[in-house]
Amino acid sequence: MTHSTTRRAMLRGSVATAVLATAGTAAAGTAHAERQGSGPNIGILLYDGYSLLDPTGPAEVLSRLPGAKVTMIAERRGPVRTDTGDVAVVADRSIDEVGALDVLLVPGAGNRGTIAAMGNQVLLDWIRRIHRHSRWTTSVCTGSLVLASAGLLDGREATTYWASADYLESRFDVTYRPERYVRSGKIITAAGVSAGVDMALHLASLIAGDTVAKAIQLAVEYDPQPPFDSGNAAHADPRLKELALRLLAESQV
Amino acid sequence: MTHSTTRRAMLRGSVATAVLATAGTAAAGTAHAERQGSGPNIGILLYDGYSLLDPTGPAEVLSRLPGAKVTMIAERRGPVRTDTGDVAVVADRSIDEVGALDVLLVPGAGNRGTIAAMGNQVLLDWIRRIHRHSRWTTSVCTGSLVLASAGLLDGREATTYWASADYLESRFDVTYRPERYVRSGKIITAAGVSAGVDMALHLASLIAGDTVAKAIQLAVEYDPQPPFDSGNAAHADPRLKELALRLLAESQV
Repeated sequence: MTHSTTRRAMLRGSVATAVLATAGTAAAGTAHAERQGSGPNIGILLYDGYSLLDPTGPAEVLSRLPGAKVTMIAERRGPVRTDTGDVAVVADRSIDEVGALDVLLVPGAGNRGTIAAMGNQVLLDWIRRIHRHSRWTTSVCTGSLVLASAGLLDGREATTYWASADYLESRFDVTYRPERYVRSGKIITAAGVSAGVDMALHLASLIAGDTVAKAIQLAVEYDPQPPFDSGNAAHADPRLKELALRLLAESQV
Repeated sequence: MTHSTTRRAMLRGSVATAVLATAGTAAAGTAHAERQGSGPNIGILLYDGYSLLDPTGPAEVLSRLPGAKVTMIAERRGPVRTDTGDVAVVADRSIDEVGALDVLLVPGAGNRGTIAAMGNQVLLDWIRRIHRHSRWTTSVCTGSLVLASAGLLDGREATTYWASADYLESRFDVTYRPERYVRSGKIITAAGVSAGVDMALHLASLIAGDTVAKAIQLAVEYDPQPPFDSGNAAHADPRLKELALRLLAESQV
């Protein structure tokens, strides 16, 4: 089998040639090649102590929208570490460099990161400024507490991480809804961590239509089959909840 | 409400104090605080052009295992960019610095990244060396093509990204199984992209038992409710498959 045949066989179907043509013309090496952004300009706000899947799940989905550009943004450029301290994603832009976005996504974090972000007036000011002209302002997990701290959820319905629901309602003028994601005007809040993937597919359908969103779901082979059925707090045993929160606490720095 | 009360109210339930005690004793700022690894030593291999959710979904899940340490590893330390070029995750260790792991995870990539990794003898040698003494060797998406290139899948059953199934079988002595994840001895391969989350929960149960795995599923609120039912290629319309592959190709650099 020649190398060319090998390549051609990697993806079956009529689109394989186009796929490989794209791959073939790509810049080599690790250089950061910027794609032309004919589609939505999507910004994801990183802050110290975020939970890794909160920004990366939606980024995976939204980056497949036609012409989309996804940018990781933080107060300062550079690596931003997760709640466990184990992983860092690079913020390629500082908030000073970003004055407008089509889509803003604010991820959630562990307690330490969430509390810090809720009290960070520089971040909250930037969120308010971006929200003023965004098409969609979104959050995952305790990111809704950050949006609420910025005053964006006043009088609205929203969701959040299951263990933070009481806090959201007691602290802010927000009605908690135990849904996977909740849309209120141009704001969409998602439930905890993995819910960002479902929210992002919904958002993809709002931006580019159902067919594109369905194709993205297929592109990321999102046909979930968890080995257990224990992800919904409304049906969880109190002891399992306690263990879940203990594992979270012990894994965080 | 005092600041202390505010903190205490954030997470409901009896474990809240423990959660906040942990948060309170954490090192401040963005320093990389290393946790003591009394649990599994988990290494995730990054290489240029990987798909973002492949390493980050499992990392989110596995990092909640008691005492676990998750390390992002690459041929060289530093930021490693995804297939879209939009996002970089930092490799905190080079392969030269890592001689043993309890769990190795090899993510998938776009065509460019997959082809390069399959032909990178330095990476393949390292994978073989780590696999010799690992407890579990795992892959997500086209990561199974990389494991196969290292000779680890000879004569085995495995899964991979749906569009790469024919290629896997034609190129290697591997029997493709269209499952969410496939275990063969100490090797577990997962299907495309998002399947890594399901595989990681299964792996969590093998490492720490069903109760811990269920608690982790609750901790990341993994109660999937995608807005569509289009993630399974076996039931997908050919035109949707073509669109999915085109969106992937166009989003990759």
